[in-house]
Amino acid sequence: MLRIGMLTSGGDCQALNAAMRGVFKTVENNTNEPVEFYGFEDGYKGLIYSKFRILKDEDFTNILTIGGTILGTSRVPFKTIREPDEDGVDKVAAMKQTYYKLQLDCLVMLGGNGSHKTANLLAEEGLNVITLPKTIDNDLWGTDMTFGFQSAVDIATRCIDEIHTTASSHGRVFIVEVMGHKVGWLPLNAGIAGGADIILIPEIPYDIKKIIDVIEERDKAGKRFSIIAVAEGAISKEDAKLSKKEYKKKLAKHEYPSVSYEIAEKIQEATGKEVRVTVPGHTQRGGMPCPYDRVFASRLGAEAGRLILKKEYGFMVGYKNREMVKVPLSEVAGKLKTIDPKAGIIKQAKMLGICFGD
Amino acid sequence: MLRIGMLTSGGDCQALNAAMRGVFKTVENNTNEPVEFYGFEDGYKGLIYSKFRILKDEDFTNILTIGGTILGTSRVPFKTIREPDEDGVDKVAAMKQTYYKLQLDCLVMLGGNGSHKTANLLAEEGLNVITLPKTIDNDLWGTDMTFGFQSAVDIATRCIDEIHTTASSHGRVFIVEVMGHKVGWLPLNAGIAGGADIILIPEIPYDIKKIIDVIEERDKAGKRFSIIAVAEGAISKEDAKLSKKEYKKKLAKHEYPSVSYEIAEKIQEATGKEVRVTVPGHTQRGGMPCPYDRVFASRLGAEAGRLILKKEYGFMVGYKNREMVKVPLSEVAGKLKTIDPKAGIIKQAKMLGICFGD
Amino acid sequence: MLRIGMLTSGGDCQALNAAMRGVFKTVENNTNEPVEFYGFEDGYKGLIYSKFRILKDEDFTNILTIGGTILGTSRVPFKTIREPDEDGVDKVAAMKQTYYKLQLDCLVMLGGNGSHKTANLLAEEGLNVITLPKTIDNDLWGTDMTFGFQSAVDIATRCIDEIHTTASSHGRVFIVEVMGHKVGWLPLNAGIAGGADIILIPEIPYDIKKIIDVIEERDKAGKRFSIIAVAEGAISKEDAKLSKKEYKKKLAKHEYPSVSYEIAEKIQEATGKEVRVTVPGHTQRGGMPCPYDRVFASRLGAEAGRLILKKEYGFMVGYKNREMVKVPLSEVAGKLKTIDPKAGIIKQAKMLGICFGD
Amino acid sequence: MLRIGMLTSGGDCQALNAAMRGVFKTVENNTNEPVEFYGFEDGYKGLIYSKFRILKDEDFTNILTIGGTILGTSRVPFKTIREPDEDGVDKVAAMKQTYYKLQLDCLVMLGGNGSHKTANLLAEEGLNVITLPKTIDNDLWGTDMTFGFQSAVDIATRCIDEIHTTASSHGRVFIVEVMGHKVGWLPLNAGIAGGADIILIPEIPYDIKKIIDVIEERDKAGKRFSIIAVAEGAISKEDAKLSKKEYKKKLAKHEYPSVSYEIAEKIQEATGKEVRVTVPGHTQRGGMPCPYDRVFASRLGAEAGRLILKKEYGFMVGYKNREMVKVPLSEVAGKLKTIDPKAGIIKQAKMLGICFGD
Repeated sequence: MLRIGMLTSGGDCQALNAAMRGVFKTVENNTNEPVEFYGFEDGYKGLIYSKFRILKDEDFTNILTIGGTILGTSRVPFKTIREPDEDGVDKVAAMKQTYYKLQLDCLVMLGGNGSHKTANLLAEEGLNVITLPKTIDNDLWGTDMTFGFQSAVDIATRCIDEIHTTASSHGRVFIVEVMGHKVGWLPLNAGIAGGADIILIPEIPYDIKKIIDVIEERDKAGKRFSIIAVAEGAISKEDAKLSKKEYKKKLAKHEYPSVSYEIAEKIQEATGKEVRVTVPGHTQRGGMPCPYDRVFASRLGAEAGRLILKKEYGFMVGYKNREMVKVPLSEVAGKLKTIDPKAGIIKQAKMLGICFGD
Repeated sequence: MLRIGMLTSGGDCQALNAAMRGVFKTVENNTNEPVEFYGFEDGYKGLIYSKFRILKDEDFTNILTIGGTILGTSRVPFKTIREPDEDGVDKVAAMKQTYYKLQLDCLVMLGGNGSHKTANLLAEEGLNVITLPKTIDNDLWGTDMTFGFQSAVDIATRCIDEIHTTASSHGRVFIVEVMGHKVGWLPLNAGIAGGADIILIPEIPYDIKKIIDVIEERDKAGKRFSIIAVAEGAISKEDAKLSKKEYKKKLAKHEYPSVSYEIAEKIQEATGKEVRVTVPGHTQRGGMPCPYDRVFASRLGAEAGRLILKKEYGFMVGYKNREMVKVPLSEVAGKLKTIDPKAGIIKQAKMLGICFGD
Repeated sequence: MLRIGMLTSGGDCQALNAAMRGVFKTVENNTNEPVEFYGFEDGYKGLIYSKFRILKDEDFTNILTIGGTILGTSRVPFKTIREPDEDGVDKVAAMKQTYYKLQLDCLVMLGGNGSHKTANLLAEEGLNVITLPKTIDNDLWGTDMTFGFQSAVDIATRCIDEIHTTASSHGRVFIVEVMGHKVGWLPLNAGIAGGADIILIPEIPYDIKKIIDVIEERDKAGKRFSIIAVAEGAISKEDAKLSKKEYKKKLAKHEYPSVSYEIAEKIQEATGKEVRVTVPGHTQRGGMPCPYDRVFASRLGAEAGRLILKKEYGFMVGYKNREMVKVPLSEVAGKLKTIDPKAGIIKQAKMLGICFGD
Repeated sequence: MLRIGMLTSGGDCQALNAAMRGVFKTVENNTNEPVEFYGFEDGYKGLIYSKFRILKDEDFTNILTIGGTILGTSRVPFKTIREPDEDGVDKVAAMKQTYYKLQLDCLVMLGGNGSHKTANLLAEEGLNVITLPKTIDNDLWGTDMTFGFQSAVDIATRCIDEIHTTASSHGRVFIVEVMGHKVGWLPLNAGIAGGADIILIPEIPYDIKKIIDVIEERDKAGKRFSIIAVAEGAISKEDAKLSKKEYKKKLAKHEYPSVSYEIAEKIQEATGKEVRVTVPGHTQRGGMPCPYDRVFASRLGAEAGRLILKKEYGFMVGYKNREMVKVPLSEVAGKLKTIDPKAGIIKQAKMLGICFGD
């Protein structure tokens, strides 16, 4: 008997179900041993509080194309993982207890950055863990790509497409705020795909004057509207000089709902043009996974299933140079895959005439 | 020689180009007289300041499926139309002068509520005016439907669809704020289409307790998430008792970006559940018109062309009981088509279990 | 105890699940009586052979946006309904037996033309029947609209959109064959929405010379490609003169897979232009229902639920002048809602310059 | 003065305009030299017969999201390129003459396999040539990816999605014929993304018995429908043993419109199940490019622009290990990038339970 636990952790994204279906189908189809799948509810919480259900074939029927996660998810911050919960429960011990009580052979975790730290901790504590790289941010270290990313690009791009026609009709400046607090893969790709004139990402601090210049030059050239794709975590050159603590302090007493509104105000003041902000927000995590993500998540799931059957544990399944690879959890945890400001894609975007505010 | 002026006015929406293409093609194809089309730029501003360009066959090629308006648009509030502009220009006189100077036979105006008041004024001043009902709000009096509406429903619904999967994954309450300041057709239809549990529209003031009750009942029934479609102009029962002036005053000193955030806060306080707000905003006006709107706008344009060729002026082309009709401009101007709280669609929505907070 | 049977019959379409969800929710939410829902499998077959399952709340969760039918469907031709099956089973008697054995209060049938004949027969035989107008063809008598239609228009239009770019790149003539054997609502609307130059529908027999003329005129005017939307049941003027029997005979010895290929060959011969045929086929019945259909089907379902609770049987729920109406089954059965060649929409399409081959 | 010629050749696909916009913008933005762009009409024909137009900034406005090619395209088979045309024109000499007469510095060619042979020939003849890898088939040697491919995957997948709901409603076997005569990347990816049960590609000859077995096993397991993604060039094991000549002969006297219909007939005979064939056909080349392709084509265009400015000629811009690379034309021409039946993606698909008929 093979007993496999599975959970989805952190902010949800598209193709979580596709990936889990991939794991399930692969294991079921490729062993003669009986298999039991335990689905933990709401991420690590399910493992801590032993909330789970047995997953059967019918649970995985027709979910390839369904967004969200059939298991539910939650955020259990890594920095609190070693602290007892409000009832005094030792979370790590509780997770181990659930694991051993159910006699699991392996735990499959689908999650992003923070969730991988916890996964690595559990591996260090002796559990057999396999993980899959889930995030719309594409910022996981050790893999060229994460699932959810391309679907989110599609949604953010469609948002820019829609804004494009209305911006052009009214001759306005439009800011589209795209998800990405620490890294800019999503706003970068959606910005290029949507034909944005300016893209602001956390990795490249911006000078507001450069942005204003571009808008005014466009105006002079008869291009009456401008589109700016702004990462949630876009940061000005001055703010980038602050310490993390100082910057947090500054944000805390901010009168703006988000950085986009501050940028909007400054542009409006300087240029006199109408500026509008659009925030697609959580829609970027939702809806039907795009075909790319379905294929990619299915393949990742298949590879995870293969590792389980070969009893190779302690890895995240990653994707490097178009091949599935296994990456030791210890290498993934705590690292971020950010954009190198000198990367080819940035150079190409600049040659196309896109301004990054630097 | 037939000389036709055309302008698009107010907030843009989908299928403006489809409608103008319909007018142009119909006139071109159905008369032997030479025709000249003048496209005024940026709405009534183009007419006031005599900014226009001659429109040719190639201007209307491949625009059936393109959102926005090839002419640009702007809002020139009706209540300021009789006031001189900042340079002392008499706007009404200027519009008439442009019209007569170009020896126009007719002016075609595509616009919403406010724009129809100005169109009616121009008709009263003796100009030949034909209008088409453009608005995502579907609130124009005298027509069952306006173009732009169904495309906006599609976008707002897709937004709710995407939120659905993420709301369900996290067990959260999600508010999607849908356009509609004074009328609720758009949030009502998007809400039903997206499977919203609660829909709040301006025509039915809400009681926050009713909303909280529904969320808590759903919670007890094991349905861990709730979706609320909120019109921009949703209003509580208490606020509905205020005079317009008092309510505006109250809104002015509001600390919330919009009504949705106030509702969110109240729900979060009362239920302890995570509540998130999503505002698709201007995306609802943009992008490719849906097939329904393309057919509808093309038909409206064709009918406008027919009226022009028959020299029947002073009408908005409307749609009643599945037929094109002509509605005197004086009947359209200044009226709003709101939702009767006792209408069939509201009754049916309530039978389906949707809460309107009343 | 209220016992309700439900079945979906004939070719499937979008929003069948949305409509059934509407019936279920409305009945469940609006009576204190206990209710039992029986879902018959694969249309009338389920009723004949007593194959069904009890439907619960969870069966209707998350199906608003899912295409197809959770009950399955099949075609049981009306003309064979009075004949015994291959095992000698009397179908009508068997259906009645199932109905009475389960002590049903009512049977809800979602179907198109043929299926309504059987529904009417069952009503005449004394069963309590309520029906909903399901078909992508929009050809049901007694209602302005059927659900499934608008979703099919969206798919067929998207197909024409996609063909448009490739037709324009290659300077080819493209035929898109749209569903519609006897009536042309679907090809007519998709054709207008997709910007087709020529639309051929069963109600307006075509003259191939007229079609060739249009293509050649376009060519002379520098428009190097043409798009033709052809109904499956498009018919030439000569063939329209044949008796039904003669025409069937002719079709039977046809060397073409469908009428589009015959038209393609004739155009290619006459103009020397490359002609390509695209047949979206069954995709027109599938996929996620569009927001319009979700609202419409939900409302129809709610109204059916209301009628059930009021014990008003023997009706199809229809839609007339934007209101839900009840139409006696005897009036619906056996009639077809075809396009009047003199209807407003045809006139408008012609004014726009669209050729119907007449 | 920099003079650049540009043409698009072969079957069109999505993102051709995005790629050309990328070249144009990059060159315009990154040199102080005056630049003149010549757009040849309808592929190599424009070069042969000196049909071109000067391309300006406005030609590249708003085309990022538009399918097709603003230049038009055609197929001029490589094997006829050295033969004179029907008027005795020496094609190669004519192309060189046009090139030299216009004093071009470089020719940019966007094309697929065949077109690259001609491009290589022109390079060998001394012209400065830069190419971009365009094809929905993703079969160009020397690059991990071609533009157009991902958009085509999206369309073919959406087709399978739509078929899925109708197949499931009716309990039928559905064959979706996906483009791909010699290579299977497109059907493979669309098949996995759409949840196909069986995928048949040219690289893996099929045994019809294996296919029938899978369908019957699914039937026994209560899964009443099956979806088969079939490449246009799918081939049975027996036929794969024939020589090319023999196979062509066999196809020529075929009574089936395509291989899918033959497979359908065999399945229907063996299983007694209803089998339906859907052929999305040319829709797979059309419509709006997906965000992935827009980014990718823009980047390829930017890199081509960079090479032009550096006067590095004789290369196709390719994509290897997530970086832009330059591939000598002589290496690209005449080679095909097929799927290795032992590739990771095939193994993973098989572990997921997908049958390839081998």
